Amino acid sequence: MPNKNDCVFCKIINGELPAERVYEDERVLSILDIAPANKGHLLVIPKKHYKTIIEMPEEELFAMISIVKKVGKSLFDALHADSFNVHINTGRAAGQLVEHAHIHIIPRFKDDELSFNYDAKKYEPMEMKNIATRIRKAMR
Amino acid sequence: MPNKNDCVFCKIINGELPAERVYEDERVLSILDIAPANKGHLLVIPKKHYKTIIEMPEEELFAMISIVKKVGKSLFDALHADSFNVHINTGRAAGQLVEHAHIHIIPRFKDDELSFNYDAKKYEPMEMKNIATRIRKAMR
Repeated sequence: MPNKNDCVFCKIINGELPAERVYEDERVLSILDIAPANKGHLLVIPKKHYKTIIEMPEEELFAMISIVKKVGKSLFDALHADSFNVHINTGRAAGQLVEHAHIHIIPRFKDDELSFNYDAKKYEPMEMKNIATRIRKAMR
Repeated sequence: MPNKNDCVFCKIINGELPAERVYEDERVLSILDIAPANKGHLLVIPKKHYKTIIEMPEEELFAMISIVKKVGKSLFDALHADSFNVHINTGRAAGQLVEHAHIHIIPRFKDDELSFNYDAKKYEPMEMKNIATRIRKAMR
């Protein structure tokens, strides 16, 4: 299995570091995050080392999102969660700390004290239209 | 196309309400969020009405995550973004406001003032192991 020296997730995948594993198959591992936003906070990690989801081939990304849904659903029964958040931080400015692609699944409970809210920015007239045009062009 | 009365995303998909569209195919629409965390904040939405990602068949979920990657990548060129966050709020307690499945893509810039950080909870001894056991059981 491709590995990268000093990558903490590669070490967990290879058994060099411990983790509480909740799911594992040929492509994907899911473990409990040791610094959880709420107890039961999970990570879904590809076994191959990719820096971010951008470098991942589609079939690997599909395997991950399929397990995100499966593991996320289990939180209703396992922990009586009311909902869950899925977060992917792609790159350092987005808060990605470990440079091995991973997806966070955070169980949520009515009236828990967690919040990922934000103050919405306001667009100037025409600004939305201009930004949409730039994005459409960049996608070509 | 299946539609649901009074669903704002179904109305956008059907052209009854306006939106800045950046991408569209048979299954998926991507538009600018009108209340952005950062300017350029996008939504990826399945054209069929599903309440959350949990109700979505795998092929629809795969189509969505594939477009999340494609649209997310375009933000580097289009807006000179440094990174991006992907958020899926599944259920009301997780902050899902519109009951039609959708994925947020938020462009991030070095030293922008946005933060989705949290204070990590601490597990009691054995608590992680017990929670992992409950999740594994619920996944069977």
